[in-house]
Amino acid sequence: MKAEIICVGTELLLGHIINTNASFIAGNLARIGIDHYFQATVGDNHKRLSDAISAAISRSDIVITTGGLGPTVDDITAQVISNVTGKQLVLEKSILLDMSGFFKRLNRKMPKDNIRQALIPEGAKWLKNPNGTAPGLIVEYKACLIIALPGPPREMQPMMTDQVIPYLKDRVKAQGFRGMIIKSRSVRLFGIAETSINEKVKDLLSLSGPATVGIYAKQGEVELKIMTKAKDDRAADINIKKIERIINKRFGALVYGFDDQTLEQTVVSLLIKKRKTIAVAESCTGGLLAGMVTNISGASGIFNEGIVTYSNESKIKYLGVKEQTLKKYGAVSCQVAKEMACGIRNSAGADIGIGITGIAGPTGGTRTKPVGLVFIALASKNRVIYKQYNFQGSRIEIKNQAARAALNLIRNNL
Amino acid sequence: MKAEIICVGTELLLGHIINTNASFIAGNLARIGIDHYFQATVGDNHKRLSDAISAAISRSDIVITTGGLGPTVDDITAQVISNVTGKQLVLEKSILLDMSGFFKRLNRKMPKDNIRQALIPEGAKWLKNPNGTAPGLIVEYKACLIIALPGPPREMQPMMTDQVIPYLKDRVKAQGFRGMIIKSRSVRLFGIAETSINEKVKDLLSLSGPATVGIYAKQGEVELKIMTKAKDDRAADINIKKIERIINKRFGALVYGFDDQTLEQTVVSLLIKKRKTIAVAESCTGGLLAGMVTNISGASGIFNEGIVTYSNESKIKYLGVKEQTLKKYGAVSCQVAKEMACGIRNSAGADIGIGITGIAGPTGGTRTKPVGLVFIALASKNRVIYKQYNFQGSRIEIKNQAARAALNLIRNNL
Repeated sequence: MKAEIICVGTELLLGHIINTNASFIAGNLARIGIDHYFQATVGDNHKRLSDAISAAISRSDIVITTGGLGPTVDDITAQVISNVTGKQLVLEKSILLDMSGFFKRLNRKMPKDNIRQALIPEGAKWLKNPNGTAPGLIVEYKACLIIALPGPPREMQPMMTDQVIPYLKDRVKAQGFRGMIIKSRSVRLFGIAETSINEKVKDLLSLSGPATVGIYAKQGEVELKIMTKAKDDRAADINIKKIERIINKRFGALVYGFDDQTLEQTVVSLLIKKRKTIAVAESCTGGLLAGMVTNISGASGIFNEGIVTYSNESKIKYLGVKEQTLKKYGAVSCQVAKEMACGIRNSAGADIGIGITGIAGPTGGTRTKPVGLVFIALASKNRVIYKQYNFQGSRIEIKNQAARAALNLIRNNL
Repeated sequence: MKAEIICVGTELLLGHIINTNASFIAGNLARIGIDHYFQATVGDNHKRLSDAISAAISRSDIVITTGGLGPTVDDITAQVISNVTGKQLVLEKSILLDMSGFFKRLNRKMPKDNIRQALIPEGAKWLKNPNGTAPGLIVEYKACLIIALPGPPREMQPMMTDQVIPYLKDRVKAQGFRGMIIKSRSVRLFGIAETSINEKVKDLLSLSGPATVGIYAKQGEVELKIMTKAKDDRAADINIKKIERIINKRFGALVYGFDDQTLEQTVVSLLIKKRKTIAVAESCTGGLLAGMVTNISGASGIFNEGIVTYSNESKIKYLGVKEQTLKKYGAVSCQVAKEMACGIRNSAGADIGIGITGIAGPTGGTRTKPVGLVFIALASKNRVIYKQYNFQGSRIEIKNQAARAALNLIRNNL
């Protein structure tokens, strides 16, 4: 069973927005075993949208459009589907009813223009839109299923996952069609040198099945993506598990998580599990580390306090960093990082104290202390350790790498 | 002059990555007046890529592909272009030379596989890739120009802006072709109610030319995008300026910036200009505000210090918040926000102190103090003001809205 995606919208052709819909729909199709070989993007133009839909119908079983279902005259998807299929647009009263409910909840009067959204090709099934006024449409035409979804992601995404996917699953089942499903799982590693990772997974990258591995490496983080095509979920899981075990065995503690798990989620979970609290003193990361940790729900139980000490004075005042340490070694030094870590640990009464000092750039670097030089120290009950880093990139990239390196340092010391 | 974009890569069809290339290339074409009506995405498949390129050649003057130029056997774009155009692949020694320089800079030996990347259709012009090994290609075929670019954005983007766009500009000029260019400018507003903005720009949204206005509203922020089609840059600027003046006049201080300018950039620039310093005490935003301010180069001159005080104890210890205030009104109250703002201002010796306290959720809300309730106070030399907000959304969305509201509060009080 083959599907095609057509994204509709002149704003896509002008480059004003990034097309996240194609990837979202594609990923969902893959997970239920529907093949997908072609995506097209066209503007709000009758002739070109018409051509694109006709071409898609001629070579696919399912055509999914997204966009062009709004209330204005520029929104032509329903009209074009009507023209292509020869099914006249008719007013569907149940849509009007649903829409008036939507506006009632917003305490607004329904504008006249929205009536256009209740005009749908005769015999079409329509899909509720809890987040907007554009209903989705399912039109049967010859051997093909045309599914029209709204363009805004917050309207399209739930409609796809909650309504279209179950519908397609049922249909696929009813037709006795058994496609191969595609499933994937990401294993996330942190702290491995990018230059050496390819060598270390060479054998995995050249696997030819039933599961294959792809690699995405970026700023100290490596994602190994295991993909498999299988007859069902269970078979897919078996294929994936086999490779996952090899990766886990090979990389051990470098693996911090799976799929969408973030490093900060891993660290906060670990801290909660081990009943440890942290406090952080940040110079060059400027609050980013505290911000990342507190993004995770439950952080209030393990995060005591954070201080952003940009100036020498604040390092002395809040953290008890010694003036002579600052003078002798400079603010960007392992000595200051260590005193920051100890200072915040004591002040906050936390189990672990983190001190970060460095040069995020783009200015402020010198020959001996270049932009990207960062010292991160970790103070715990019995010891203080530190690491020195030389990060590359923009100010924001350096801040990011430093905050993530700090998270990894915490992870490795729990 | 018409261009088409073809994105090549099975990972796009599986939904594993979001296609940012199409939008990037499209935006660049629009700015130099090259029309663009159609984008396609296909996998690493000879037949389908071949069909897509042939179809594009038949209806367009320029075909730009991106992806499929890597060193592995899955990378087939050069081969397919060779097949479609009948131009044999030949080894281009200057590419090999360039590539060996690339590996030398990385201190690595060039893998054998990379030699494939030096095989290009006979007579093709090639484009240097400073960020990778895949050269870009320009192939003339009949009346059409086929331009093949690598897939990774950090390789494709500079190749597009530094080499392809100047090349296309020259070519367009040499052919005596005068396309209409498309130019846009975004006016950014903050602090206007989303429900009222549409009403307030109704007349602008229905303009039919020479400039039109689009609206994008999200979480307190509104982007009004002025677009125009004109014969050249100067004419475009005149069209845009006319509308920009109307918007500026209508919204005055609500306008905080233009195009890609962020609220934190505006605030840091203003602080630098007015020679004022700030210090921030954050509870529910957990360091996000400090992190945003310190993302901006030059922040060290205006940002004194930041403290993340999640616990009551730390609010008392660092900020001098009174225990009885916490007891009487609770940590999430305007009284505590005000004491936080005054406390951090005094402690840091800053001109402006900010205090933020609230409930980011998803847990911790009550009937009287629901998730999303946030108090932000600003202390300056002569006064302390505060604002109460009821934000909606996830924990991260609430943190974001609160930090941005605080930035806007600073902006409005400078």
